[in-house]
Amino acid sequence: MLGLMQEWPLLCHKILDNAARQHGNREIVSRSIEGPIVRTTYTELRRRSLQVAQRLEREGFKLGDRIATLGWNTARHLEAWYGTMGIGAVYHTLNPRLFPDQIAWIMNHAEDRALFVDLTFMPIVEKIAPLVPSLKKIVVLTDAAHMPATALPNVAAYEEWLAEADGDFSWKSFDENTAAGMCYTSGTTGEPKGVLYSHRSNVLHAMIACMPDAMGISSRDVILPVVPMFHANAWGLGQSAPMIGAKMVMPGGKMDGASIYELLDSEKVTFSAAVPTVWLMLLQHLEETGKKLPHLRKVVIGGSACPRVITQKFQDNYDVEVIHAWGMTEMSPLGTLGTMKPEFEGLAGEGRLKLQEKQGFAPFGVEMKVTDDANAERPWDGKTFGRLKVRGPAIARAYYGGAGKEQFDEDGWFDTGDVAHIDEHGYMQITDRAKDVIKSGGEWISTIDLENIAVGHPDVAEAAAIGVAHARWDERPLLVVVRKPGKEVDKEELLSFMTGKVAKWWMPDDIAFVDEIPHTATGKIQKTVLRERFKGYRLPTE
Amino acid sequence: MLGLMQEWPLLCHKILDNAARQHGNREIVSRSIEGPIVRTTYTELRRRSLQVAQRLEREGFKLGDRIATLGWNTARHLEAWYGTMGIGAVYHTLNPRLFPDQIAWIMNHAEDRALFVDLTFMPIVEKIAPLVPSLKKIVVLTDAAHMPATALPNVAAYEEWLAEADGDFSWKSFDENTAAGMCYTSGTTGEPKGVLYSHRSNVLHAMIACMPDAMGISSRDVILPVVPMFHANAWGLGQSAPMIGAKMVMPGGKMDGASIYELLDSEKVTFSAAVPTVWLMLLQHLEETGKKLPHLRKVVIGGSACPRVITQKFQDNYDVEVIHAWGMTEMSPLGTLGTMKPEFEGLAGEGRLKLQEKQGFAPFGVEMKVTDDANAERPWDGKTFGRLKVRGPAIARAYYGGAGKEQFDEDGWFDTGDVAHIDEHGYMQITDRAKDVIKSGGEWISTIDLENIAVGHPDVAEAAAIGVAHARWDERPLLVVVRKPGKEVDKEELLSFMTGKVAKWWMPDDIAFVDEIPHTATGKIQKTVLRERFKGYRLPTE
Repeated sequence: MLGLMQEWPLLCHKILDNAARQHGNREIVSRSIEGPIVRTTYTELRRRSLQVAQRLEREGFKLGDRIATLGWNTARHLEAWYGTMGIGAVYHTLNPRLFPDQIAWIMNHAEDRALFVDLTFMPIVEKIAPLVPSLKKIVVLTDAAHMPATALPNVAAYEEWLAEADGDFSWKSFDENTAAGMCYTSGTTGEPKGVLYSHRSNVLHAMIACMPDAMGISSRDVILPVVPMFHANAWGLGQSAPMIGAKMVMPGGKMDGASIYELLDSEKVTFSAAVPTVWLMLLQHLEETGKKLPHLRKVVIGGSACPRVITQKFQDNYDVEVIHAWGMTEMSPLGTLGTMKPEFEGLAGEGRLKLQEKQGFAPFGVEMKVTDDANAERPWDGKTFGRLKVRGPAIARAYYGGAGKEQFDEDGWFDTGDVAHIDEHGYMQITDRAKDVIKSGGEWISTIDLENIAVGHPDVAEAAAIGVAHARWDERPLLVVVRKPGKEVDKEELLSFMTGKVAKWWMPDDIAFVDEIPHTATGKIQKTVLRERFKGYRLPTE
Repeated sequence: MLGLMQEWPLLCHKILDNAARQHGNREIVSRSIEGPIVRTTYTELRRRSLQVAQRLEREGFKLGDRIATLGWNTARHLEAWYGTMGIGAVYHTLNPRLFPDQIAWIMNHAEDRALFVDLTFMPIVEKIAPLVPSLKKIVVLTDAAHMPATALPNVAAYEEWLAEADGDFSWKSFDENTAAGMCYTSGTTGEPKGVLYSHRSNVLHAMIACMPDAMGISSRDVILPVVPMFHANAWGLGQSAPMIGAKMVMPGGKMDGASIYELLDSEKVTFSAAVPTVWLMLLQHLEETGKKLPHLRKVVIGGSACPRVITQKFQDNYDVEVIHAWGMTEMSPLGTLGTMKPEFEGLAGEGRLKLQEKQGFAPFGVEMKVTDDANAERPWDGKTFGRLKVRGPAIARAYYGGAGKEQFDEDGWFDTGDVAHIDEHGYMQITDRAKDVIKSGGEWISTIDLENIAVGHPDVAEAAAIGVAHARWDERPLLVVVRKPGKEVDKEELLSFMTGKVAKWWMPDDIAFVDEIPHTATGKIQKTVLRERFKGYRLPTE
């Protein structure tokens, strides 16, 4: 027997309808690409999104078409998203930090039919547009006065293009499982893989994000998403902030400490989200200028593990609550958030900081488990680590085009490729990437832990731990180390420094000093290259 | 094109799975019907709910069966809900405050196949069980030691019945639109009408309820649902509290001031929800004893309009935030909540109390509008009132069996039967019931407003305003008044008292003094009876 409740599909444009109806005058403030700070409201944003939808439809774009965006966080970028989704087309965020040929590869894979682009990125577009035959239209997110010269065909200035539509338009109707957005992961190996969000997953993800144990945001917040919309949907803030009608502050292309501080201060921002690097820049700016953060209440920090010093400084020096979070593009992206369960509510100082080094716990809507190589669940004891697998309504069940099938279990779990442990309270901590973890005698050794300890030595500039074949133990750790210039630390000293800081059987069997460790374009250590280089390396323990 | 996100149906048992996994040791404390305070945890509650499911299945109950409950708020009642939902059967809460023949009528209409009942209500069950032929099983929510003598067949003691199952059972799988729960509305006129909730609507409603602009509850809260589970699902707290893993405190059958205070104090309750009457009793108890509420942070007040004095006392004397809320059984039930939008965040004193007399604004997931008789939308100006219509994923699209079709518009809106205005900030205030509102010359007059003003006169005990036929204006207001004993207020004095407090054209054309005003069993004024009695009444203005 079915219930007798209304059919009310979870569609993204309902978020905007609600924002305009209930929070119509609330502002969206953007640092525009042209320079000045500009202001709009949810009423205005909705009207213009309807114009985008109307204009796209008039040009023949329709349900299922992929419409790319290559832009910073601005109200115009949000309008492009909602206008695209409003006709059932799919916004596809492109990461401008990739090489142009990678971007072209991704656009061709997605068969993007149109592109909204910020002025900043026109030089990139000049290079890639000729390589993407599916691309029929380019809309530059500016006005005619600021349009750059271009020889590309079918290029329009956003404001004039928009003005050709009157906004007298209704959102299209479609199933809530219709694709709404798309984002490619930039793996360290292999081709990028496309994640295809649905209206349903976007709406549910936004609801999960707002909950008090997750981001805990309300209409009374002023939200500054520093994390770009092209970085896993700005962690959902493009949907969750309008869902609750919060004022938004969009930083445009300026993410340096002084620029972010200026917005935090002038717009009285209460909530923000960004990767650790951004916060390091902000903290440095604050320390140099002696400025404070009287309005800021809470920051979410994710994208990579948050160094303890950031958490400590925010909390001790600026009375800002830090939420360490973990997620993935494949998860829309929120996975876990390090808010305080009641048993830790009063925790302060060292104990709190230690807990905050973990990535937090999963809210309703995210299931997780850690498994061994045979897919058997491992205990939640805060030390036994395994492959982290997740399940939920805003988590991918496949990649676009069918790549990466091995990451999706038959029983519906997505294998994150991370290795983690979960403690008895449900707090998870990432300890490694599954492909990097060293398997020694059936047990796993975390390379990240070894590296973190090694770089704690004052003479070590960088360290990478890799597994090297071993007759008896299958694999044993080799630590590859770059010394700081002019420093002379040797194997004996470094091993002695590490002794007692990890389990005895985790200790590296050898240390190889090198001049340089190879990195990817985005700064990650290329362990595949290292493993290749040290293939056949004979450990002294053999 | 569809998205590629996981199929993860919104099923109620996932709420309990998450609670047990992430908040397994959190307590559910109940004042048991047998007397003592008893404690369990989410892990235990889930295990026992699985036993209920297993036991029900073993007795042949299955997907779609209606399983009634006649019980107070206790952990056992929650187990009965989740066990029932876990096999795809439908929990059906019965209101013990109805007359036994009404309960029997409802059970027969729903064709309830089993019944979970508290000891308190066994005398009622003795009367109704023989009248309900579909009823195959009665489980008394107690243990063998406390079982009352009964001649009814197929009666079991819950604990012993449960112990026959080992809990080694998996929740059944089904579509998220499967019916999960049922509740009949107790209208002032006509037969009761059944509302049939789905798993999807229950889960979405719980998510909406937790949001910071709605109830704003987290795992750090200790939640006391005074509002009974048979009163519109305890306003969703049976789902929303486990969803976030909050400690729950269940008051059993004792709702007097001293009993509620005892739980608030001993269990350090931070959040509670109840109708105004309960809070009046608590406030009286506090005033008599001089006790304070150091732990309580927030109360939600609904079910009927919250008198200003309650809000004022909670906020001024006890530093407890009041959220005035409105909803309906047909809405799961949350409709609007009177939390503060940022423009009112600093509001205090008179201005704040005035805003809090309104029932608040609708969160994402509840759409509302006010319309005239031709279904045209009326403006949101805080004074133009109209029929209040609502739309959303947790709002009924029909009644069970098809009654009340006229309340469901063709365009998907549910007509609440309330008359309300909505201000420019989205805050809604109920001004009347649609069937009571007086239509004078095409304009509407709120009878509730007239009555509230009339009872402000010191000699007036009770007042009811009704429309009486009028040749020129269609209807004009007649005020029916009961004087306080020994008091002598007359028409002239009362009209003079009311002058200036309402628009001139709202003033009653006449006042009829009577000895008594008729009421329903639940204390509501029977305006239908009054209208019948004063049919043909000749107003002096004719």
